[in-house]
Amino acid sequence: MSERPISSITRGGLRAACRAAAAALALAAAAQAAAPAAPQALTARQVLDASTASDWRPIDPQYTLYLDLPGGRVIIEMAPLFAPNHVANVTALAREAYFDGLAFMRSQDNYVVQWGDGEGKKPVRKAQRTLAAEFERPLRGLSITRLADPDSYAPVVGFVDGFPVAADPQTGRAWLVHCYGMLGAGRDNDVDSGGGTELYVVIGQAPRHLDRNVTLLGRVVRGMEMLSVLPRGHGDLGFYTAGETGLAVRSLRLAADLPAGERTALEELRTDTPTFAAYVEARRNRHEEWFKVPAGHIDVCNIPVPVRAVQR
Amino acid sequence: MSERPISSITRGGLRAACRAAAAALALAAAAQAAAPAAPQALTARQVLDASTASDWRPIDPQYTLYLDLPGGRVIIEMAPLFAPNHVANVTALAREAYFDGLAFMRSQDNYVVQWGDGEGKKPVRKAQRTLAAEFERPLRGLSITRLADPDSYAPVVGFVDGFPVAADPQTGRAWLVHCYGMLGAGRDNDVDSGGGTELYVVIGQAPRHLDRNVTLLGRVVRGMEMLSVLPRGHGDLGFYTAGETGLAVRSLRLAADLPAGERTALEELRTDTPTFAAYVEARRNRHEEWFKVPAGHIDVCNIPVPVRAVQR
Repeated sequence: MSERPISSITRGGLRAACRAAAAALALAAAAQAAAPAAPQALTARQVLDASTASDWRPIDPQYTLYLDLPGGRVIIEMAPLFAPNHVANVTALAREAYFDGLAFMRSQDNYVVQWGDGEGKKPVRKAQRTLAAEFERPLRGLSITRLADPDSYAPVVGFVDGFPVAADPQTGRAWLVHCYGMLGAGRDNDVDSGGGTELYVVIGQAPRHLDRNVTLLGRVVRGMEMLSVLPRGHGDLGFYTAGETGLAVRSLRLAADLPAGERTALEELRTDTPTFAAYVEARRNRHEEWFKVPAGHIDVCNIPVPVRAVQR
Repeated sequence: MSERPISSITRGGLRAACRAAAAALALAAAAQAAAPAAPQALTARQVLDASTASDWRPIDPQYTLYLDLPGGRVIIEMAPLFAPNHVANVTALAREAYFDGLAFMRSQDNYVVQWGDGEGKKPVRKAQRTLAAEFERPLRGLSITRLADPDSYAPVVGFVDGFPVAADPQTGRAWLVHCYGMLGAGRDNDVDSGGGTELYVVIGQAPRHLDRNVTLLGRVVRGMEMLSVLPRGHGDLGFYTAGETGLAVRSLRLAADLPAGERTALEELRTDTPTFAAYVEARRNRHEEWFKVPAGHIDVCNIPVPVRAVQR
């Protein structure tokens, strides 16, 4: 995702970044020369550098959306395990070019950006305009990599295939979590009034009160920096007003529908591996030289799952 | 702050917003006509609408900074209870016009924006270039409005005079929390290498791992939407690279140093009142028609303390 694994609030950042990199290299060299460093002493960067090919999985073009904007391409991975009908419907909308030429209608600071047809007038052909909500699903059948730290909002939090997930073993239900970069289907007051003709992405502090109130169906894996800087709307809830023009959507396409040469081959760190566990631990307690007090805790929305170009 | 009290992910947002407003008005009218509505049934908007003048306190111009940018004014409230030396030093820097003509050097997505003198070469006159860190302070003497919900990072979280705070009764220490919009003093690897000549503001998911690792000294109360949209830097950690020009800082001034007519008179909701408690409860469990599942929890960083123009 967008936050770098090594994060610091540096004075004269480049100098400090170089020192940090040098320190990391020195530490890695020392580890190789002598006994292996204890896993808990690694930084997130070191964990990733030590990962092997099997720690990564390709992102499936069948479940990847390309949101092409004037400034470049935003890449979204969809979550068919959690919102199969919404994923299928947004795929159908993409195939009939529904979003092409529409625009962003909303940018609310510390909350969401949203695009689609604000008037709800653009015809839908083979896709559906509305769908039954998919706010949650059975916990059964899911393999959740659980976080050790408690969560304020849910009994269990963790990851499934790279997606942040919450669950309640008592009710036997699980749901996607509204972390930064998550993609949802806007709806009206009726629970079943969404469907994917309006889509939003979280651009601020995780609005966890939306969990189980809206259907989440994916997450942005590339290009968040194009969405998060959209000028905020001056209307209620960050909607653009008559005098404001929202950024145009050139197209929204399924990656699998493009020729292979026009795709962006990405892979993401598997979240069911010891490497991911080490990555989480490295973010729970930072070992970069800059840090003085380890947090000893981590929020599910402070663990961006790494994504990179496929390594050949 | 920037998120509106009534937040929803609406399809055709204006229609829904109008319906929600009508519903709120109808509910308020019903409450006035019959028995008062139970406090837990109120929305945040209704709580604020029912507040009285004594629920609000003016923001002190002696502890208010105006960060004037080409696009307008960002207003920051400083926290002398937590970082008295940094507050005094940034005030001194403002008085010698230290920041005028400097620029933003960093914009890291989902993390921070930062401004100052990246090279550390601009002369400092009466102010100090570096200060001893003020990461935390004694819990004694603080009156914290505690949140009922547990926090993943600290034994106690709550508010003091509008600022999000964490504390550990076992160690007797308290500290400001890295929520969206908080202002901090960048530093180098040395703990005492900060001081306020480089300042940052949080623009993403609360980076709680920074708590007690950097000196926080204030929070943005107006104008976050000018900081959060700064184009992200392409260098490491979001620093701008040679080809990128960071937004210029016109000036950073103490409000009290301006003639009264050039100030922006603001007041904020007192956080030690029953009204604030009702506001928190209204955000823990949303009663707007749009919401279907109440969260039953709230994170300390999901409670933006309301700020408004002084009501005459």
